[in-house]
Amino acid sequence: MRKIELNAIGLIHTPFKIREGMPIQPTGAKGVKGTIIIESEFVEGLKDLDGFSHIILIYHFHKLKEYKLTLTPFMDDKPHGVFSTRAPKRPNHIGFSVVKLNKIEDNILYIENIDVLDKTPLLDVKPFIPAVDVVEVDKLGWLEGRSEKMGSKIADSRFS
Amino acid sequence: MRKIELNAIGLIHTPFKIREGMPIQPTGAKGVKGTIIIESEFVEGLKDLDGFSHIILIYHFHKLKEYKLTLTPFMDDKPHGVFSTRAPKRPNHIGFSVVKLNKIEDNILYIENIDVLDKTPLLDVKPFIPAVDVVEVDKLGWLEGRSEKMGSKIADSRFS
Repeated sequence: MRKIELNAIGLIHTPFKIREGMPIQPTGAKGVKGTIIIESEFVEGLKDLDGFSHIILIYHFHKLKEYKLTLTPFMDDKPHGVFSTRAPKRPNHIGFSVVKLNKIEDNILYIENIDVLDKTPLLDVKPFIPAVDVVEVDKLGWLEGRSEKMGSKIADSRFS
Repeated sequence: MRKIELNAIGLIHTPFKIREGMPIQPTGAKGVKGTIIIESEFVEGLKDLDGFSHIILIYHFHKLKEYKLTLTPFMDDKPHGVFSTRAPKRPNHIGFSVVKLNKIEDNILYIENIDVLDKTPLLDVKPFIPAVDVVEVDKLGWLEGRSEKMGSKIADSRFS
């Protein structure tokens, strides 16, 4: 299968130095502030991003070495296929969060509602655009009736 | 800077064999059907994903070799920093779309509203969960007042 080599464009800095006790989604990290330090070679690409109140972060769960195809996620006590969950222990270890962007100064993005480990490598940042990023869902699978509670969950050793 | 090596978990098949004439966002690809063929080694991870009506796709714009830090996006006639746009010609060439999931049969996902080039390598698939993926935006930057029109735009040679 095709191999794809990427380079981090920056590092996400957060108060979360260890995985235990971390919020598992941005909704559980309300008000948690962090910064993203963008590599100087990419700073030109940030122009006009500060016009947007919310941004999409795509990043790499850098502490994980392995993945599991079946796992029991935080929101359930039954096992599910990893791709039906947002668990980090997935092939490619790619994470996705929508966070609030407070301001940009030079190569530093000041963000809020951030739910990742300190020094997480950032792969991409994009503006969050409701007209294309928001859809009406009919079915929420095993999360039906419980996804609203995701915000209050915090990580335990399953993140390790 | 940290190098990250990923492997595609599958390929996205769509009717779009060339970039010219393609929709530039899923909202412009309403009703366009495609399939994703997942590599057999990852099929176990798909269990229960079919309970969700919409999924997040994270993929690699595999036809692009270079990036531009400043470019003029489809929705404007003025240049912007690439990270303030959804243009594919960005560092790491990572794309993100929310699509409808109609069904899964073995290793094949049947999807709708797909806006990528045929044989695009898939890096990750996650359930779309409004409780964590939808935020209320205050500011839409240079897209203010025009993002609703994104659906009607199609690609020209800027995608090449």
